[in-house]
Amino acid sequence: MKKVLILLGCPESPIQAPITLYLSYKLREKDYRVTVTANPAALRLLEVADPARAYLDKTSDLDSTIDSLSKAEYDLLFGFIHNDAALTYFITFKSILEVPSIAIIFGRDAEIIDTLEKEVKENTDSHIVSVRAHHNPNPLKVRIDKLLEELED
Amino acid sequence: MKKVLILLGCPESPIQAPITLYLSYKLREKDYRVTVTANPAALRLLEVADPARAYLDKTSDLDSTIDSLSKAEYDLLFGFIHNDAALTYFITFKSILEVPSIAIIFGRDAEIIDTLEKEVKENTDSHIVSVRAHHNPNPLKVRIDKLLEELED
Repeated sequence: MKKVLILLGCPESPIQAPITLYLSYKLREKDYRVTVTANPAALRLLEVADPARAYLDKTSDLDSTIDSLSKAEYDLLFGFIHNDAALTYFITFKSILEVPSIAIIFGRDAEIIDTLEKEVKENTDSHIVSVRAHHNPNPLKVRIDKLLEELED
Repeated sequence: MKKVLILLGCPESPIQAPITLYLSYKLREKDYRVTVTANPAALRLLEVADPARAYLDKTSDLDSTIDSLSKAEYDLLFGFIHNDAALTYFITFKSILEVPSIAIIFGRDAEIIDTLEKEVKENTDSHIVSVRAHHNPNPLKVRIDKLLEELED
């Protein structure tokens, strides 16, 4: 069974927690083992939204995860990136894991998205999903559905 | 079986969708029939976060709900209120339904919370839960748990 790590940014985006639960659900349907790592507030949002644990598998605190992370500990890395802090964590996780990775870049500001995208391209060989989205999760959901279809091949 | 209507505000608060799923789950455990009404973006957040419908029961568009709403159509009204628009909708729903209601007032700004609380008190006889909370859902979850315990009596 393949292991996926999903890395979240800070919790201020209203679409991050909903889309994370959706992605976790879809990956588990494909028999991935899913671990979500984030700061405590972002994890609490997920846990409150999923009280019966219908969608989440494992969750783990960001700083303790990074402290004990080793090469190829997971088979695939997803990162939700909507600011510099999340970008920095993503590059760090990617450089330690050295596994295929997918950067999900989103937010309301097209310029910030462009900058984040450029940084991910310069610093990693990640597959990039980049969408202007803040309140409405649909544009991001559509792109993630497409990505998940390609994962199957 | 008692019928509850949960009214949401606009989707910009990151805790609204997670707490709504939690509240819907807890109310359904107590054998309430739960309908959530909100604008399309806020509903999409809930639907994306709950792809297997583990927590949501019925959802309905805000404007069409208000158009067809009649007195005592639901037994209990919950309203999530973090700005003036949500406050206005809540007062309107309450005045049409004329049933017991609970106003959940939250946000990051203590002054805005105070003003919203004052307005709810002046315009309705609602029970009020008021909490400063923006990223971290815990303060609101604790208050909602307490409220749900009292509902049982």
